[in-house]
Amino acid sequence: MASNRPADSSTEPLHRQLYTRLREDILARRLAPGSKLPSTRALAQDLRLSRNTVLGAYDQLLAEGYLECRQGSGTYVAQALPEGPVKTTAGLPKKSRAPRHVSKRGRLLARTPLMAPHEIPPGAPDPISFRPGVPAVDAALLKEWKRASRRLDRLPGRLLGYGPPEGHETLRRAVAAYLATARGVRCSYEQVLIVNGSQQALDLASRVLLDPGDPAAVEEPGYLGAKGAYAAAGAKIVPVPIDEAGIALDRMPKGARPRVVYVTPSFQYPLGVTMPLPRRLALLDWASRTGAWILEDDYDSEYRYAGRPIEALQGLDEDGRVIYMGTFSKTVFPGLRLAFVVVPPDLIEPFAGARRLCDHHSPAFEQAVLAQFLEDGRFVRHLKRMRAMYRRRQEALIAAVRERLGGLVEIRPADAGMHVLAWLPPGWDDVRAATHAARAGIETLALSRFCLRKPARGALLLGYTALEEPRMREGVRRLAAALQTFKG
Amino acid sequence: MASNRPADSSTEPLHRQLYTRLREDILARRLAPGSKLPSTRALAQDLRLSRNTVLGAYDQLLAEGYLECRQGSGTYVAQALPEGPVKTTAGLPKKSRAPRHVSKRGRLLARTPLMAPHEIPPGAPDPISFRPGVPAVDAALLKEWKRASRRLDRLPGRLLGYGPPEGHETLRRAVAAYLATARGVRCSYEQVLIVNGSQQALDLASRVLLDPGDPAAVEEPGYLGAKGAYAAAGAKIVPVPIDEAGIALDRMPKGARPRVVYVTPSFQYPLGVTMPLPRRLALLDWASRTGAWILEDDYDSEYRYAGRPIEALQGLDEDGRVIYMGTFSKTVFPGLRLAFVVVPPDLIEPFAGARRLCDHHSPAFEQAVLAQFLEDGRFVRHLKRMRAMYRRRQEALIAAVRERLGGLVEIRPADAGMHVLAWLPPGWDDVRAATHAARAGIETLALSRFCLRKPARGALLLGYTALEEPRMREGVRRLAAALQTFKG
Repeated sequence: MASNRPADSSTEPLHRQLYTRLREDILARRLAPGSKLPSTRALAQDLRLSRNTVLGAYDQLLAEGYLECRQGSGTYVAQALPEGPVKTTAGLPKKSRAPRHVSKRGRLLARTPLMAPHEIPPGAPDPISFRPGVPAVDAALLKEWKRASRRLDRLPGRLLGYGPPEGHETLRRAVAAYLATARGVRCSYEQVLIVNGSQQALDLASRVLLDPGDPAAVEEPGYLGAKGAYAAAGAKIVPVPIDEAGIALDRMPKGARPRVVYVTPSFQYPLGVTMPLPRRLALLDWASRTGAWILEDDYDSEYRYAGRPIEALQGLDEDGRVIYMGTFSKTVFPGLRLAFVVVPPDLIEPFAGARRLCDHHSPAFEQAVLAQFLEDGRFVRHLKRMRAMYRRRQEALIAAVRERLGGLVEIRPADAGMHVLAWLPPGWDDVRAATHAARAGIETLALSRFCLRKPARGALLLGYTALEEPRMREGVRRLAAALQTFKG
Repeated sequence: MASNRPADSSTEPLHRQLYTRLREDILARRLAPGSKLPSTRALAQDLRLSRNTVLGAYDQLLAEGYLECRQGSGTYVAQALPEGPVKTTAGLPKKSRAPRHVSKRGRLLARTPLMAPHEIPPGAPDPISFRPGVPAVDAALLKEWKRASRRLDRLPGRLLGYGPPEGHETLRRAVAAYLATARGVRCSYEQVLIVNGSQQALDLASRVLLDPGDPAAVEEPGYLGAKGAYAAAGAKIVPVPIDEAGIALDRMPKGARPRVVYVTPSFQYPLGVTMPLPRRLALLDWASRTGAWILEDDYDSEYRYAGRPIEALQGLDEDGRVIYMGTFSKTVFPGLRLAFVVVPPDLIEPFAGARRLCDHHSPAFEQAVLAQFLEDGRFVRHLKRMRAMYRRRQEALIAAVRERLGGLVEIRPADAGMHVLAWLPPGWDDVRAATHAARAGIETLALSRFCLRKPARGALLLGYTALEEPRMREGVRRLAAALQTFKG
């Protein structure tokens, strides 16, 4: 019997350590099938262990079939183990006898980024992140959220069981009511499905609406999560350029008949264009004529600082072509992982079926707390407070950039959203500029990261919503210092 | 201008109702492009509304581009709207001009059941459910869970932001430690990925390991969720019979070279067989030779009532072929939607990449509370209490069935799990028997629902874990009454 104990087992109980050693010896054939083991008493004496310790290990090995008892004769290594040497020692796999096959889809998924890559190298000094789309999570929100949670102290046990894939009815009703008032979305609550973030809405839509090889249109530049979800579904990605009114359907590649088109009409991601009414109607008309589905991602429409919020495309859709999605990641907090998708009535069943097979449904508690948060008006009050705060932060960012970087970058206020674009001097490579800034601990995202083809002019996306003003000014100061030493 | 108000808008503010009417009139060309609107003052008098109400509606329509102002001249319907009649009235889609195309995968997903269908017709009297796999959610658990939640009052805000797709490190560490002790799983915490229920583990594994058309083996009879996940990934399902030692690889269809095989070695679902050691080693050896992956679903291994728990297959795997999954749905509560999957080191990246594109990661709060629950020992104490309760419930169920149904069905205690099988008289159709019982308000699941081919003998699965004993006895009494009037 091998006498060295496995190095990592010293915190385990003694009977467990003995069990492990014996098992390994059996598997490695150091104890041959059919060989007799010492009695528990003898082994206990040998190893200076209590007899109970040895009994514990033997019992476990008997239960698992490594050992067998013969009446009146003693304990033996089981005969029924397969012939020949099988295993050597414990540990992680050392070598494989056969290929380790990951699917084509799996390899694609592993290398498809969802966010543009994080640019700050490890060890960079005091990092400050201008990553867009990250809301401020403040003490006031946490306090209100906890208050809503505490109201659930009488949550009935049945709500904690398996629930419907569509989501909890109270939350679906609260979302439908909110969307009707705030976004002009026209739907019954049955059309509202609760999902784990808008990425899941994109994933479900791609699975339900696209077969491998189907063409699917994205905005160019556009959100990486949409391209990723299409790619995971095996679809062929059709990039459509953005002009001053949003997606330019007349510039779609000739002959492409996309089954699905992904758009961000409220505030185009990442360029910030708001799609005006004529383009909205033209898009709906095109979808209605060609039988395409429109994925309307209204991801940050709650944050509009200038002009009035424009109603959702969904509210103009007479033909049930729009799948409308929005998220609580930007309005409550990302770690909540709750969002919603509003589907035409004939898509409820396929979406719910797909959801069931993905992961059943969203968590019970989170849904119940969020419903409470919406119903008692806290959500709308929270939004109002955030909108004012983000407006101030955007103004502060633009002032700081103009002061420190005025001669170098061009920046304009955005009417909505959670980031602004700082346009770099013509000819500058924005990815290299972002990498240069990251070395100084400043995270920004290069516009090129959102493009399939290199854009005419490079820019940096500067998210401002999660940064308090002094910190933001410090970030801009360091960004300016970095860009001034960057030579295009 | 149409004078009838939309019937469903009476709770909306007046400016909103006016906005909606005007917008519909514009879209329907009842108000032609370029036509002049009455002044706000005149319209307010006409409609007996305040001028502010009319101003509110006009402002919104101006902001959205339906109306335009001409300096010193008044308000006009925008010229830029597309030519020709576009829309008629508000509402859900009435007719489609183009086909409404759902993908082949989408149609499949809509009709793939995950659970066997719920059998109780609506309106059945006082339903009692013997649905398997539903844990008891009791007051003691809820109290302990809330205590764990309250410890998180100082949860740092950054934890509520976007997190890593693999899950929170504290929870991954706690799961790895638990699995090492309780299940003999050998892994570093980096191999533990937190997912939303074991269904998501199956979905991720299917996407990462299977391309469309790839063969993938399931147990026959077996878990519907595994078949569903394979089907969603486009795989070809290879059923492999179960014998007295679990999956019978030597009875696999000739020439099938499955890339993946799904097994439940601790307590085969639904037959309850525990896979003995020689079969485990043979399965690992086969996987190692053929390059197949093993999905080990250890879904209810915590509940073992007789014999000692048998270690996970994963702990015997020297070649990194096992993807091990388990869930907190059966041990805490299903509405939590948290489970884990332990993958070989080379699969961490594709699984995490796939997860990111599905839905980023699991919710922050839930993960933090669960980590707390595991770390402070409450989870293990809860399990111990549940195990004792479920053992008593199983005994009570078997006693009641033998008393009431002894002459009709055959029932044996199960060493583990959350259900027992009641074998029907030879020749009885279990689906029809279950439907018959459901009419009397008793939900059971027919064994046939888990089979691709009709089993030699029908049986009903009786879950007992969520039923208090008096209720269970009442259920058995009514089940007996129903089966006694059922004629095969």
